[in-house]
Amino acid sequence: MKDETLSPRRLESYVVGAWRTGEGEGAPVANAATGVVHALIGTKGLDFRAALEWGRAVGGPALRAMTIHQRALMLKALGLKLMELKEDFYQESFATGATRSDAWPDIEGGIGTMLTFASKARREFPNARVLTEGPVETLARDASFMGQHILTPMEGVAIHINAYNFPVWGMLEKIAPSLIAGMPCLVKPASQTAYLTELVVRRMLETGLLPDGALQIVTGDPGDLLDHVTEQDVVTFTGSATTGQMLRSKPAIIANSVRFTMEADSLNASVLGADAGPGTPEFDLFVREVAREMTAKAGQKCTAIRRIMVPRSHETAFVEALTARLEQVPIGLPTDASVRMGALVSLKDRETVRARTSELMTEAELVVGDPESCLLVSGDGEQGAFMAPVLLRSANPQEGEAVHGIEAFGPVATLMPYDDPEEAIALCRKGRGSLVSSVFTDDGALAAKMVAGLASFHGRVMIGNRASAKSSTGHGSPLAPLVHGGPGRAGGGEEMGGMRGVKHFMQRTAIQGAPAMLSAVTGQWVDGAPVQHDVHPFRKSLADLEIGDQIVTDARPVTQADVEHFAEFTGDTFYAHMDSAAAKANPFFEDRVAHGYLIASFAAGLFVDPEPGPVLANYGVDAMRFMMPVYFGDSLRVRLTCKEINPRENAEHGEVRWDCQVVNQKGEIVAHYDVLTMVAKSWPLSLSDAAE
Amino acid sequence: MKDETLSPRRLESYVVGAWRTGEGEGAPVANAATGVVHALIGTKGLDFRAALEWGRAVGGPALRAMTIHQRALMLKALGLKLMELKEDFYQESFATGATRSDAWPDIEGGIGTMLTFASKARREFPNARVLTEGPVETLARDASFMGQHILTPMEGVAIHINAYNFPVWGMLEKIAPSLIAGMPCLVKPASQTAYLTELVVRRMLETGLLPDGALQIVTGDPGDLLDHVTEQDVVTFTGSATTGQMLRSKPAIIANSVRFTMEADSLNASVLGADAGPGTPEFDLFVREVAREMTAKAGQKCTAIRRIMVPRSHETAFVEALTARLEQVPIGLPTDASVRMGALVSLKDRETVRARTSELMTEAELVVGDPESCLLVSGDGEQGAFMAPVLLRSANPQEGEAVHGIEAFGPVATLMPYDDPEEAIALCRKGRGSLVSSVFTDDGALAAKMVAGLASFHGRVMIGNRASAKSSTGHGSPLAPLVHGGPGRAGGGEEMGGMRGVKHFMQRTAIQGAPAMLSAVTGQWVDGAPVQHDVHPFRKSLADLEIGDQIVTDARPVTQADVEHFAEFTGDTFYAHMDSAAAKANPFFEDRVAHGYLIASFAAGLFVDPEPGPVLANYGVDAMRFMMPVYFGDSLRVRLTCKEINPRENAEHGEVRWDCQVVNQKGEIVAHYDVLTMVAKSWPLSLSDAAE
Repeated sequence: MKDETLSPRRLESYVVGAWRTGEGEGAPVANAATGVVHALIGTKGLDFRAALEWGRAVGGPALRAMTIHQRALMLKALGLKLMELKEDFYQESFATGATRSDAWPDIEGGIGTMLTFASKARREFPNARVLTEGPVETLARDASFMGQHILTPMEGVAIHINAYNFPVWGMLEKIAPSLIAGMPCLVKPASQTAYLTELVVRRMLETGLLPDGALQIVTGDPGDLLDHVTEQDVVTFTGSATTGQMLRSKPAIIANSVRFTMEADSLNASVLGADAGPGTPEFDLFVREVAREMTAKAGQKCTAIRRIMVPRSHETAFVEALTARLEQVPIGLPTDASVRMGALVSLKDRETVRARTSELMTEAELVVGDPESCLLVSGDGEQGAFMAPVLLRSANPQEGEAVHGIEAFGPVATLMPYDDPEEAIALCRKGRGSLVSSVFTDDGALAAKMVAGLASFHGRVMIGNRASAKSSTGHGSPLAPLVHGGPGRAGGGEEMGGMRGVKHFMQRTAIQGAPAMLSAVTGQWVDGAPVQHDVHPFRKSLADLEIGDQIVTDARPVTQADVEHFAEFTGDTFYAHMDSAAAKANPFFEDRVAHGYLIASFAAGLFVDPEPGPVLANYGVDAMRFMMPVYFGDSLRVRLTCKEINPRENAEHGEVRWDCQVVNQKGEIVAHYDVLTMVAKSWPLSLSDAAE
Repeated sequence: MKDETLSPRRLESYVVGAWRTGEGEGAPVANAATGVVHALIGTKGLDFRAALEWGRAVGGPALRAMTIHQRALMLKALGLKLMELKEDFYQESFATGATRSDAWPDIEGGIGTMLTFASKARREFPNARVLTEGPVETLARDASFMGQHILTPMEGVAIHINAYNFPVWGMLEKIAPSLIAGMPCLVKPASQTAYLTELVVRRMLETGLLPDGALQIVTGDPGDLLDHVTEQDVVTFTGSATTGQMLRSKPAIIANSVRFTMEADSLNASVLGADAGPGTPEFDLFVREVAREMTAKAGQKCTAIRRIMVPRSHETAFVEALTARLEQVPIGLPTDASVRMGALVSLKDRETVRARTSELMTEAELVVGDPESCLLVSGDGEQGAFMAPVLLRSANPQEGEAVHGIEAFGPVATLMPYDDPEEAIALCRKGRGSLVSSVFTDDGALAAKMVAGLASFHGRVMIGNRASAKSSTGHGSPLAPLVHGGPGRAGGGEEMGGMRGVKHFMQRTAIQGAPAMLSAVTGQWVDGAPVQHDVHPFRKSLADLEIGDQIVTDARPVTQADVEHFAEFTGDTFYAHMDSAAAKANPFFEDRVAHGYLIASFAAGLFVDPEPGPVLANYGVDAMRFMMPVYFGDSLRVRLTCKEINPRENAEHGEVRWDCQVVNQKGEIVAHYDVLTMVAKSWPLSLSDAAE
């Protein structure tokens, strides 16, 4: 905070609909860089069972009453509002020891992640409450019994237990998918930096955008919280492997098969390719990336590079280049604009990092830096948790254990020389599962070989080369569209990954029944479900249109003249349409056949109702399959059926998906596809219509 | 076995490449229906750590060297071979107490499940070793940095711990997805019926179809097996919740974040709808289904109906009808063709069922049957574990605890009257998570309401009505294309679900990099990756074709005459193409536009190479999007690029997916889609070419 002479703020917990202070004065939380007490924290006397029950009883129903797009728009509004308030968060963030550029991925990265989820949800999910997933599965020969998977929100609370290093992003990347799924959240930030998370939650709740019960926060000891979880709750944990394993084994979690997602620290590696020697752009990128990963947030990132693998022949040049970079980094108060590396989160955490570094030094020699002392451009090395970057070197990494297993969660990394790609792969795998590895090479074949060796041990692999030098988000950044998490040591969890992440908070259920029943349940028309014929469905706006509205067209013959005319008009004189002998030699045809595009064009001519009306545009076609050949003389008709209706929240139209079956004179389906249209919500159009 | 006078068979374990007998004579396993010792079982002295290491070192690499289609074809051959041997399995199955019709879902259902996986894998997955999943994600504005998820086989062993009730299906439904994924398996069947699993494994290994190390079996106590699991292993468990929770908490599983999938018994409910009163087909279906679920396998199915929910008004009629059915069921030796219900798996298990039934009877009254005695048409009630069907009734199920929590894993179910759908839903949910519920109704709105209330507590919901009366596979049958597993009490796991189930044995990894790097890693062309121009790619067979092979066509103008001619020719005179005023009133268009199908047709005319050649057919189009309008006078060209090549194992051709971008005179993409073709492996065609 700007004025350290202010008395420390007593943090509160927002549970059961109110901000509540624990009993007593609370435990002190110090400013990481100055040692001054910044906040007081404690939850004594709070009723966590009641908090979970309130989330389930109040928050869940309110969220489930909204559609997915409504929830996403709520998050969009929330994200835009938080972005307006970002300067307050940057100010508060200084107390964590983070510089402004350290805080950027936490604050703006966190808000951006929430906005990405809000936008992807509206683009990739329908505006519905229940999702379907995958194809309708035909379970009986006569298609009178079908199956379909649906996804519905879990009806408990999503409990998000976060680490101190990303007090904003760590919360937002988890509540965004949970809230879009329709699950209320209870956030438990790490005590060391809970003041920042609490401030952001306070600002979110002040917007009034969230329904009651959708978001709670516990600052301080979570007490018996995890003793009250049920089979409908979900727990996510980010932090140390030791704590995560303890929580995962809690009796209520085991007994109720509670979903538990863990994202733990890991010994992430970065590998320099043999092709990327000194003088190549990849060498420079690698040096820059290693230096950045060691110093950003003072190395306190779950994804930070802990193991640096360099071809033996490039080792000397690399050490020289990295040393030069690390020695240039000004360390000091994060509020000091000249500083590029701030403090660790606390003096206690610095002690732990130093102790771990000592353990590493039983196997690795010191190359750069001193774990015990540090030159500062500002601040006090006794009061603030400052530490210089430390580069170690393992001479025989194949025999090392500590260097692959012990993580000094600070600005500490171990250099490991290697001889060939197989050795580099083997070394990376000695981490027993990591969040991320990166490979710096301009050789695609080497990249492919490395990924093949690394993938099963990693949640993410980044390839760095000159082509993405400017645009790459780097080794250390999890991104909303990609999964974050890794096997084994990294916790075995999976977060984000785009809309996959939303499904972590939903139950997948296989529904079986007759087509009419599936249709009734999912709100989507299934082949075999009832159809209605009245006016042409293109005459109906969304106000009138229903799934199952169908038109069956007249038949139209396809003649040799049609095919030859189409070939000449379009230029598509492919031999299967034009040359009887060549067509007969083709294993799929008995003679000349009509063009697939001719079939689709004739089909449109049959099913389209031409007069101005609520159908605004055909914006695409999905999964078009030409099921059997159409020969000259065959006669085609179309069954076009309204299959899915997806009204947009902030527009005067919606998307309508039509099942289109083109049938020949024998009743065989010759082409089957989905026609995608935009349809007005009402007709005639209101004047204010605009795409969202 | 046929001759019970034979001495019992000493079961063996197949580990580390050989059939091995544990030390000592082994513990006796009795024939469930006769009490005669049928087998001797024991693993004393076997080295389980070595078994896991052998699977990882020998089985894994052999499987990973194969493509997914090769693994699927191996399973197909294996399944067909097992089907030939099914009579041997039926014979052996009698010792488990199961009648021939009880054994059908186990033996033929199990083999059928394996064959379904083999067939779906070849239809739904490419013939590759690495899978991609989801779209390529653009991570930079200039598209120079992209992301893509890949799936690679986990490099450990899939350990499958199975229940006694499905000794064949339980193994095959798990090893099929594991082996397709590329993971070697170690199967640990329940001791009570391990002789049947051991026999099937023996027959599978005898075929020589499986590579060394791909399949091991441990018959008897698994000892310290689970102390040696690593982060690359996967453990699946089917059985009681208590055992599952104990295994899930094992130190090595917790410490290494080992994937653990659990499928436990649950208190599955079946609900009769209020519309489905006596005299309706649904009433009769319900009575038949309840009777079948209570008696099939003597009620020893994880999915069996344990709670029967009937509208209070239909209760008397239901009890009458069900009683009549249950009293007709002849109980006795499973080898006796007149018998419709065999024995429980052992006398000890019968004791447990009786004890649990007593607990249930503290809350529910006895309506039909006697837990302690049973009329037999053959066999001896002291030697064989026979038990009559027992129907209980809970008068106040809303207040019950035992009836929703205690499972008598035998022919025992509790009837619960209810007043309205909300009450039925609340009762079902008191099971705290189940594998399956079913609803019998002909009312779509009621089905939708019930599913909305049940879905988040269930892995599967089946709707029964007259329309699927003949084709429905019933309440109790998990099916290969649908997920099997449920939240909470049911274990929180998920199995099968079609190709989802294969992914449970693979690691998902996000790959990031420049387009050329992604392409090198995935073997699929990504926009921005290198392209080659030499001969027209339609002149290349699979022997020559490479991803990135591209043709950029000449430009072709689209004129008003073209659009009017196309409209007249096809009949598609939609107003947006024909009527300037109406088009201008449309929110998406500034004036009359070309038909989407015209654009696609002209595009084909531009990119097709017409002479006979290795391109055999255009069998479809995927994800066609018309990105912006094409107005009269616009000029179009096409960039067609080879994106994916998928050679079929047993055919002379493969599938080739082309990226098709239609670009206007300003360089804007107006249409974007995938063109799907069949291409010959060599050209000219060999005479033996045939579709697989």
